[in-house]
Amino acid sequence: MRTRVTDMFGIELPIFAFSHCRDVVAAVSRAGGMGVLGALYFTPEELEMELKWIDDHVDGKPYGVDVVMPATYAGADLGVDSPEDLVARLQGMIPDGHRAFVENLLARHGVPQLSAGADAGRVLLGWTDATARPQVETALKHPIALLANALGPPPKDVVDLAHAKGVKVAALASTPRHAIKQVEVGVDVVVAQGTEAGGHTGEISTMVLIPQVVDAVDVPVLAAGGIGSGRQMAAGIALGAEGVWTGSLWLTVEEADTPELARQKILAATSRDTVRSRSWTGKPARLLKNEWTDAWESAESPGTLPMPLQFMLISGALRRIGQSDAAELATFPAGQIIGAMNQVKSAKDVVFDLVEEYVEAVERLERLTGD
Amino acid sequence: MRTRVTDMFGIELPIFAFSHCRDVVAAVSRAGGMGVLGALYFTPEELEMELKWIDDHVDGKPYGVDVVMPATYAGADLGVDSPEDLVARLQGMIPDGHRAFVENLLARHGVPQLSAGADAGRVLLGWTDATARPQVETALKHPIALLANALGPPPKDVVDLAHAKGVKVAALASTPRHAIKQVEVGVDVVVAQGTEAGGHTGEISTMVLIPQVVDAVDVPVLAAGGIGSGRQMAAGIALGAEGVWTGSLWLTVEEADTPELARQKILAATSRDTVRSRSWTGKPARLLKNEWTDAWESAESPGTLPMPLQFMLISGALRRIGQSDAAELATFPAGQIIGAMNQVKSAKDVVFDLVEEYVEAVERLERLTGD
Repeated sequence: MRTRVTDMFGIELPIFAFSHCRDVVAAVSRAGGMGVLGALYFTPEELEMELKWIDDHVDGKPYGVDVVMPATYAGADLGVDSPEDLVARLQGMIPDGHRAFVENLLARHGVPQLSAGADAGRVLLGWTDATARPQVETALKHPIALLANALGPPPKDVVDLAHAKGVKVAALASTPRHAIKQVEVGVDVVVAQGTEAGGHTGEISTMVLIPQVVDAVDVPVLAAGGIGSGRQMAAGIALGAEGVWTGSLWLTVEEADTPELARQKILAATSRDTVRSRSWTGKPARLLKNEWTDAWESAESPGTLPMPLQFMLISGALRRIGQSDAAELATFPAGQIIGAMNQVKSAKDVVFDLVEEYVEAVERLERLTGD
Repeated sequence: MRTRVTDMFGIELPIFAFSHCRDVVAAVSRAGGMGVLGALYFTPEELEMELKWIDDHVDGKPYGVDVVMPATYAGADLGVDSPEDLVARLQGMIPDGHRAFVENLLARHGVPQLSAGADAGRVLLGWTDATARPQVETALKHPIALLANALGPPPKDVVDLAHAKGVKVAALASTPRHAIKQVEVGVDVVVAQGTEAGGHTGEISTMVLIPQVVDAVDVPVLAAGGIGSGRQMAAGIALGAEGVWTGSLWLTVEEADTPELARQKILAATSRDTVRSRSWTGKPARLLKNEWTDAWESAESPGTLPMPLQFMLISGALRRIGQSDAAELATFPAGQIIGAMNQVKSAKDVVFDLVEEYVEAVERLERLTGD
């Protein structure tokens, strides 16, 4: 299978796999696709270790790194470059009423305080320019093939920095207008992502969005959102994309370090068990729908805070929930495709099944138009 | 092009066109697809006239009729069979506060009262079993090929009545569970409709929904929601559907009796200019987003009423808005695909363009997998 994207990266299959788990990234790249490591949850030091591990396990195949550099966020205008100072300033912007709402919610569900030694300081992550840049610098020291930005166009100088190292740049777009802006700053591949996708996502569905983005830009487009099978891959490419970008699909593979409880929830979920919510980061993201997301929509909710304050507000709560028995509050980014994910397979088998069903789908289309 | 659906109806193209306009229905059937007249807005007497006109203009080609028989609605348990008595009983269930909210909204926008002679009595439409049945009886007196139900499984006896006349039955499903229920009562074709569709619609996107429905039932499935071009038709069929069901696409064709102001709004809209709202009928439906839909989400909103009370509440207001200059309040069902509808063509040209781009999309898929 050959598109501009397979040519660009020298890969066999135009299948991109976003994952926070290095094992999944390496396995998909080894299987002929392109693994892309989500850097968000890692400190620069941790990211260095993860990428070193991938370098040692990817058999020389290309892989990518995904960072989050939102175009707009609270504190962007504070002029604070140091991540530590920025965190301190931002902490002061979180209202007491919001902190009380979170504490009360956890208390109602019997969630205990963090055990001693838990990493209570990790409150900001790479949601800002100041905190994502060290991740970019770390990533570019490795032989990565792709740097992706999850929230709109990356800063122009980051694009230039990547290009100077021979690294291609991708960005996620949820409207044709976003895609045009991204190409203007030099993005090489647009990931057009429909509303059904997990994580930060817009309003327009994949079916409607892809042709609009393909027609709006000259660079190759990857279809994202709702891609979990070969039929969906064929549909994405029928819409004009030159490959697919997948995420939720890898949460349940054997290699994934997804907590067992979360894996079971995904395997049991239907496609109606997700919701687009601001309760994770302050920007709309599709999450597993549960008592956490419901609480933020309830009459008692103080409303969510803008990025990155919302995640700072809840980061300790998320860790406390993760260590507790309050499974009903444990949410995470998940796309509607989780409704079709009912068994655990290896990442390699998922890639092979995608390709096999893709080929069947194309052969069926050929038969229907033949006489 | 041949699928079980083209065989079932003896049509050349598995393209179904839902429209409230008889001219569109006849034009699409004549072009080789299948026009389906939405009966909702017509009294049985009016429907009789529309179908007579279609019979005279469809050149013997098959066409269908779409009714709305919701599985659940307020008043379903009143045991009232007479449409007039049912309207009277239901009118008493509409709170004064809701009537005041609508009056105030219209007053703020300077919408005058109805001119004398306006049809103020048309408040219920075919939203109930009692009011939709006369439409079914009228439809079955004509040589229709298809009876479709827009909100879930039709009553079993209606399916049997249609089958006894040799008429196939279709039903719209927004989850695989709905589709299974529909097939259980005898539905011959399932229209799997994604959230991006105009009108009553569920939460799951077309990309995610279609394969789930195809795998859940043995009858042929039509892909609906976001289908406005040949690439989208190819995507729907790649997902496993055996044809496509389209609606919004026909709002702007030359033959459509869409009010000129509405047509201009659709041509100018982007795919972000729709919203899933209960403000039209009480059940979630995708509408053009404007000051009407915003008002029902505002802090002053009393909330919407259950079907059919919401439409009864607002039917007079909709007519008053239609006769006024308050274009900012004029909403109507519209899918996200309106963002891609930027020119006026004949229905026949829309059909031909769909087919031409479909063939191109399939040829491109063949090239990409060939060596």
